[in-house]
Amino acid sequence: MDIIVLRPGVTSKEIRHIVKKLEDMGFKANISKGTERTVIGVIGDTSKITEDEVNSFGAMPGVEKIHRIIQPFKLASRDFKAQDTLIKVGRHTIGGKRVHVMAGPCAVENLPTLLKIASEVKKAGATFIRGGAYKPRTSPYSFQGLGELGLRYLAEVKEKTGLPVVTELMDPRDIDEVLRYADIIQIGARNMQNFRLLQEVGSYDKPVLLKRGLSATIKELLMAAEYIMSRGNHNVILCERGIRTFETATRNTLDLNAVPVLKKLSHLPVIVDPSHGAGKWDLVAPMAKAAIAAGADGLLIEVHIKPEEALSDGEQSLKPDNFTVLMKELRAVARAVGRTI
Amino acid sequence: MDIIVLRPGVTSKEIRHIVKKLEDMGFKANISKGTERTVIGVIGDTSKITEDEVNSFGAMPGVEKIHRIIQPFKLASRDFKAQDTLIKVGRHTIGGKRVHVMAGPCAVENLPTLLKIASEVKKAGATFIRGGAYKPRTSPYSFQGLGELGLRYLAEVKEKTGLPVVTELMDPRDIDEVLRYADIIQIGARNMQNFRLLQEVGSYDKPVLLKRGLSATIKELLMAAEYIMSRGNHNVILCERGIRTFETATRNTLDLNAVPVLKKLSHLPVIVDPSHGAGKWDLVAPMAKAAIAAGADGLLIEVHIKPEEALSDGEQSLKPDNFTVLMKELRAVARAVGRTI
Amino acid sequence: MDIIVLRPGVTSKEIRHIVKKLEDMGFKANISKGTERTVIGVIGDTSKITEDEVNSFGAMPGVEKIHRIIQPFKLASRDFKAQDTLIKVGRHTIGGKRVHVMAGPCAVENLPTLLKIASEVKKAGATFIRGGAYKPRTSPYSFQGLGELGLRYLAEVKEKTGLPVVTELMDPRDIDEVLRYADIIQIGARNMQNFRLLQEVGSYDKPVLLKRGLSATIKELLMAAEYIMSRGNHNVILCERGIRTFETATRNTLDLNAVPVLKKLSHLPVIVDPSHGAGKWDLVAPMAKAAIAAGADGLLIEVHIKPEEALSDGEQSLKPDNFTVLMKELRAVARAVGRTI
Amino acid sequence: MDIIVLRPGVTSKEIRHIVKKLEDMGFKANISKGTERTVIGVIGDTSKITEDEVNSFGAMPGVEKIHRIIQPFKLASRDFKAQDTLIKVGRHTIGGKRVHVMAGPCAVENLPTLLKIASEVKKAGATFIRGGAYKPRTSPYSFQGLGELGLRYLAEVKEKTGLPVVTELMDPRDIDEVLRYADIIQIGARNMQNFRLLQEVGSYDKPVLLKRGLSATIKELLMAAEYIMSRGNHNVILCERGIRTFETATRNTLDLNAVPVLKKLSHLPVIVDPSHGAGKWDLVAPMAKAAIAAGADGLLIEVHIKPEEALSDGEQSLKPDNFTVLMKELRAVARAVGRTI
Repeated sequence: MDIIVLRPGVTSKEIRHIVKKLEDMGFKANISKGTERTVIGVIGDTSKITEDEVNSFGAMPGVEKIHRIIQPFKLASRDFKAQDTLIKVGRHTIGGKRVHVMAGPCAVENLPTLLKIASEVKKAGATFIRGGAYKPRTSPYSFQGLGELGLRYLAEVKEKTGLPVVTELMDPRDIDEVLRYADIIQIGARNMQNFRLLQEVGSYDKPVLLKRGLSATIKELLMAAEYIMSRGNHNVILCERGIRTFETATRNTLDLNAVPVLKKLSHLPVIVDPSHGAGKWDLVAPMAKAAIAAGADGLLIEVHIKPEEALSDGEQSLKPDNFTVLMKELRAVARAVGRTI
Repeated sequence: MDIIVLRPGVTSKEIRHIVKKLEDMGFKANISKGTERTVIGVIGDTSKITEDEVNSFGAMPGVEKIHRIIQPFKLASRDFKAQDTLIKVGRHTIGGKRVHVMAGPCAVENLPTLLKIASEVKKAGATFIRGGAYKPRTSPYSFQGLGELGLRYLAEVKEKTGLPVVTELMDPRDIDEVLRYADIIQIGARNMQNFRLLQEVGSYDKPVLLKRGLSATIKELLMAAEYIMSRGNHNVILCERGIRTFETATRNTLDLNAVPVLKKLSHLPVIVDPSHGAGKWDLVAPMAKAAIAAGADGLLIEVHIKPEEALSDGEQSLKPDNFTVLMKELRAVARAVGRTI
Repeated sequence: MDIIVLRPGVTSKEIRHIVKKLEDMGFKANISKGTERTVIGVIGDTSKITEDEVNSFGAMPGVEKIHRIIQPFKLASRDFKAQDTLIKVGRHTIGGKRVHVMAGPCAVENLPTLLKIASEVKKAGATFIRGGAYKPRTSPYSFQGLGELGLRYLAEVKEKTGLPVVTELMDPRDIDEVLRYADIIQIGARNMQNFRLLQEVGSYDKPVLLKRGLSATIKELLMAAEYIMSRGNHNVILCERGIRTFETATRNTLDLNAVPVLKKLSHLPVIVDPSHGAGKWDLVAPMAKAAIAAGADGLLIEVHIKPEEALSDGEQSLKPDNFTVLMKELRAVARAVGRTI
Repeated sequence: MDIIVLRPGVTSKEIRHIVKKLEDMGFKANISKGTERTVIGVIGDTSKITEDEVNSFGAMPGVEKIHRIIQPFKLASRDFKAQDTLIKVGRHTIGGKRVHVMAGPCAVENLPTLLKIASEVKKAGATFIRGGAYKPRTSPYSFQGLGELGLRYLAEVKEKTGLPVVTELMDPRDIDEVLRYADIIQIGARNMQNFRLLQEVGSYDKPVLLKRGLSATIKELLMAAEYIMSRGNHNVILCERGIRTFETATRNTLDLNAVPVLKKLSHLPVIVDPSHGAGKWDLVAPMAKAAIAAGADGLLIEVHIKPEEALSDGEQSLKPDNFTVLMKELRAVARAVGRTI
């Protein structure tokens, strides 16, 4: 059901034209004349009306505005599936009672450093190793990642520590390499609306960690999940990582409202990245605790042995010591909200 | 110390002109010629340079940009005062180990309803009653509050329950009434830069709860606190209540990053209003818990006996039952982060 | 007419409860069961439903969302008055074919400077002198304006040049002074939702120049105009002056879309302030031309004899020479869009 | 030259550590002790310091903040090349005195419609045909474009009308087809930071029309241009198409400030897309005129024979009649600012 609001002074010819178009599409039109506006209620399964068709009504003479009643995402919605989706990755389950912490460096730099970080975060209680082999960087002159070599390092670290791997895919042409080495494929914030990439990862059943774009609405994040799911892959983990606002004191504004809103609108698991969301290492701990208190199913945290020598994002990386302290604090908060870590 | 960056091609006459102006103001100029730009370091106590004077340098020929090194707020900054400020209100202390929950209706509507709400929130553990007698409303046709009558109801409820009163001042002409009845004077988000009002409340020692404006940066919030403090009133409680962003799924975007950032930059207590920050009653509980996990010193929560009959903000008000459950959950989270409620 | 969308799984008891409430308010309920949602159309004059009442429906069990069909502003809307409002100020008419340029310093600093600026801008073709006697400043340590003395200087300059005066009112307690000296009372961006101030200027018939708040939507700007008009003063001039966004290369983002949108929704004249909208003097000329091309009825431009010595906003002020060149260019653009200056 | 601001209480050991790191990188450190902060000026060619390295300084103990003096883009900057870049496309030159209007449907739908639109816009004075064969759509259920077939239709229309073709590339795997048929390759807003795609189009000399991302700063737009230019392709046309803000009355907020700012910072041509920038057909004309008045080198305008039947963006498309009227008006505005169309 959608609602078409007509302009004051709409002619009956214009109304007939709109009604005819609706009927040609298989709908019935329910016209109500109010004191100030006439409104057409569209009767029938309007969930099949595409945004394009809605737009085209907006171009008709006499139409002032259209109100959509139904959310445009389907497979991703709670209406479609009421129970929480649980995603199995090896022996872990994401979306259940246990909160998972995925930790590691922003970028894979070399094997010894990666291995050292992985051992430390594992010891502290992290259940996944994260690290980028392909890095989307604002500047063409910045370190762009080690590419496939980085993926091989991740695989080696997984073998030694048992930690499954979360790593980013930037280009559909790299899908085979990433499928081979990753346990969870990350789609970065800047690629949240790279629709070809979404379709690509939608064609496999490998779990996808989908980060919210810097200026993406919650609805658009769910539409991006829908792109993946509409190709058959329902293993999507949503990730809030901060949005762009006018505030300059922090790198981004972590939108924790998004956690309960996503939980309400969708059945998919929701994790939070406080490292990007705050952008400064000394803000990571309070925001990580806040994320769990808000109901997040997991965290993505940047950890580096020597942040001041990190090839990227040093400013927001925790040292292993701080990470270990944080994990202890997180366990207390998780317990307070009925979860475990 | 400030830094003046000069344009490429700046003339030596232009540089002399700038240096002269600096020297006339009592500063020394330290000129460094870099490969791409020449830069003037301003030596001396630049904290006394006003924003106006900075602006006026920006208007001089040859100047490309000015970088200020020092934050423009002083009395509100941690540089000025390293220890946390504790604010005494009756037998309570805000800013210490104990987290305070200030609860009540958006607007004072009538005495029996207010009394009922106050008894319920007190029983659940709230330590302050909040309620508006003067209401800033987007529409001139909306309920504007009971005015002084509302203040008298608050006083009566305080007498009966012992809960101190938080209520809003909108107009300097109402200061006497509000001083008489309020224990904490609230300055609302829309008035955060109503500078005359800030100066007014700065002239008394009554504690002020200063809400962040919808599009105010953290720096501007601290400058607003500075307005109050510069008049002598150092009893300022900062309040994050959500900022305006592109996201439309929630009424505002609650910026919990602001909690640790404010704690780092300032010694003033910081509380959070999850009711306005989320704008929907079923989001209040997760965001209240998140606020405490992030380090907030208190919460401001809207509670109403019958939200569906509330004269304002019904959509975001909790019922007493939900509030009681929430208080229990909040206690667990507070304990997990080393606080009490 | 408003639309109430019900949650999936709403009970018939909940529906009856909502219908009863509507009927008690004097409306009829038109229930349509769609495939995915049930929707209630509210029949009757819903323009009288306040935002509060809408909110209270949002708090009822079974309600998912409410779509309002009618804009919440009335007196300010084109629905209420189809023809453009023309505002007479002395011998000038704002809102007609002629575009008015209001120019002068940000703040009144002293009489000789003000007089010199006024003579220059008059010679170049400006029809109003602008200048602040009461200045809202971000910092309590910045120049706060000359107060009533500044108003007297403006009056003296008006007497000598014949230019009517535009000046800001910040505090309802200054209304008498400002009424005495101003031809147009400016309400600044930070006070756009200082509702007591709006009500105050609404009680006289003196024209009001109402600046859009930094984060005010177009709808909220019109609601602020409605506050003034609902008290009887229909002489409101709307002013776009830049909004706050994530972009940091400019002080604000001048939203010229607002010009045709305001013209479509409202009958009130619309002017543009490119000085604040861009925040840098060398951007003022292109944006002033763009504003006129977009259909603005006037401009507010900051001009100073010596911007580098201005007590405020020097960085965005034009020198008289540049202003004179700009006025010539503006005349050409005005002619191109069928206007005069 | 960059500036490193140190925290109050920084130790001399921390300072030595920072100075050593700078010296190891080949820079000299100029330490100035101010009254409130100590500051290190970095002497040497800091344009070679990457953002990563800046970030890594931010992670060092004792560092409060870093101010970069130099813009991070080089090839795209006016510092690098003072004269305007002129881009030749067939017999046209973009970036010179003549303003170019690129018009056509949002998406290529079928050959007869495309041909009809092309003939109409050519007759009215457009110099390029625009139309998408690959369409980035928010919903996976929306029309995704005709793909290569659409490109062939564009080629056929080009042959018949002589209008060169502007069309979008979404996926690096489609580069060969798009290179074959397009005269200008468009990179859409959602792909502005699809860095692999930028590198791909940077490897050819085909002109690239680079649209600003919905939440991209002006600096980030120039960094995206830098990505393309750093691979050898200097034929980049920048396009302002509206940014995302809190305002919901329009689809986007057209940021015309960006036009003069980009012209000041860069030598690249700048065009404006008022169709996306406003999002409603009746706002296109005023904003197109405003764009030219602000100094744009061209316009991108959506035109459709029957907007109400368009498969995408009907709501913001002009009909040929309105487009013809607009072109006449645009000529007058162009003349007023010393340009031609």
